[in-house]
Amino acid sequence: MHMGIGDSEVEALVFDMFGTVVDWREGVATGVADCLGEYLPSLDPWEFADLWRSEYQPAMEQVRNGSRPFVRLDVLHRENLDTVLARLEVDPRMIPAQVLDEANLSWHRLDPWPDVIPGLTRLCQDFIIAPLSNANVRLAIDVAKRSQIPWDAILGAEVAGAYKPDRAAYVRTAEVLGLAPEQVMMVAAHNSDLAAAQAAGLRTAFVARPAEHGPGQTSDLAPTGDWDVVAVDFAGLADQLASESQETA
Amino acid sequence: MHMGIGDSEVEALVFDMFGTVVDWREGVATGVADCLGEYLPSLDPWEFADLWRSEYQPAMEQVRNGSRPFVRLDVLHRENLDTVLARLEVDPRMIPAQVLDEANLSWHRLDPWPDVIPGLTRLCQDFIIAPLSNANVRLAIDVAKRSQIPWDAILGAEVAGAYKPDRAAYVRTAEVLGLAPEQVMMVAAHNSDLAAAQAAGLRTAFVARPAEHGPGQTSDLAPTGDWDVVAVDFAGLADQLASESQETA
Repeated sequence: MHMGIGDSEVEALVFDMFGTVVDWREGVATGVADCLGEYLPSLDPWEFADLWRSEYQPAMEQVRNGSRPFVRLDVLHRENLDTVLARLEVDPRMIPAQVLDEANLSWHRLDPWPDVIPGLTRLCQDFIIAPLSNANVRLAIDVAKRSQIPWDAILGAEVAGAYKPDRAAYVRTAEVLGLAPEQVMMVAAHNSDLAAAQAAGLRTAFVARPAEHGPGQTSDLAPTGDWDVVAVDFAGLADQLASESQETA
Repeated sequence: MHMGIGDSEVEALVFDMFGTVVDWREGVATGVADCLGEYLPSLDPWEFADLWRSEYQPAMEQVRNGSRPFVRLDVLHRENLDTVLARLEVDPRMIPAQVLDEANLSWHRLDPWPDVIPGLTRLCQDFIIAPLSNANVRLAIDVAKRSQIPWDAILGAEVAGAYKPDRAAYVRTAEVLGLAPEQVMMVAAHNSDLAAAQAAGLRTAFVARPAEHGPGQTSDLAPTGDWDVVAVDFAGLADQLASESQETA
């Protein structure tokens, strides 16, 4: 029933969310256009989404390097929104606070790529499936509920108390699952995420998302590491894990 | 869409698990009979289940009073199994360790009461639903997966880092849900759980489970507090929350 690689079987698949499971760029652009369009007449919602996302790693880095205690991603996203407005030389006092809070919820209203629900519906027959995302729990719940993503649990940074790619985010997630790291497979569209997961002892699966950053994407178009599985989408992932489990049955 | 009591709407329902959602006594008795029957010829599996459960609160109390750090319930259950065997004057060395470990997984193989799945399937249309149980995450995942319980997330003691009825277990769960305590309703078959939830600011719903402790049950047969909802089962709970939400719509 389970995929065997080496001595131990994979029992759980954990998924990066932003980019791997959901199309954050399109979803945030839509939310920003709806919420902020009337306040920002020259708004390019995709450029705004890219700017907002560009503050993501720097904000988490303050938590990872210990210069501030762990705070959930909703808080970082809201701070980053103010940062983006400042960079665009918009006075945030020109926009009501509740409008900015509502814009922040754009990150809770992201839609999955089309292959995600059918793929996960197959994968959850044989594996525990959960996000291992830097999203906070409520964000991931809202994303899952709007699209009926069949997660078995919501794991990730908030439960682990650490942001990827900190080793603790991967190791503690395996502990919560009651599994050794090698019984857990990280699925991500980002080679850096998989490198950190592999260094923590997890198995790895790369699924390319060449449209994550829009038409001009240059990063993560192909696997750059020695990952256990490389698949074109979640259907391909399910196909490969099913054939592996037959070989080892 | 949501139930309004006072000023704020309930957005999430959180559930006690052992007794309220699942019939732990029957499930543990079945597991114990399967695993330990050949080693314990005079075993009464229901008596054994009751003895095992009787060590539950004392074991958690060591964590609650700070005399030991938080450890997940699987660890406490395994220690308590040794305690029960000692009380029955069984030398645990007479039983292989892997048999005892397997017996401990009886707590992962509990079945829900018959009204649970249909009730939760209705409730999850209008509310975030999650266990707020002292079970660890993996235990709750295994219980949910075998019966396809449609939780939106697995919350509870391990995520909160505190065992009920510690106030922190309730307050931190509301925080993870991004909600004020009064936007969260605790559903339980135990008046003591609801009293602690209410003291922490949560709404409360009592669902009696008169067979939880078998035919001779004397406790928690009726509500003893001023709970927001009292229902005979999860169908009744769904009925009442639906009619409340119509009144406030």
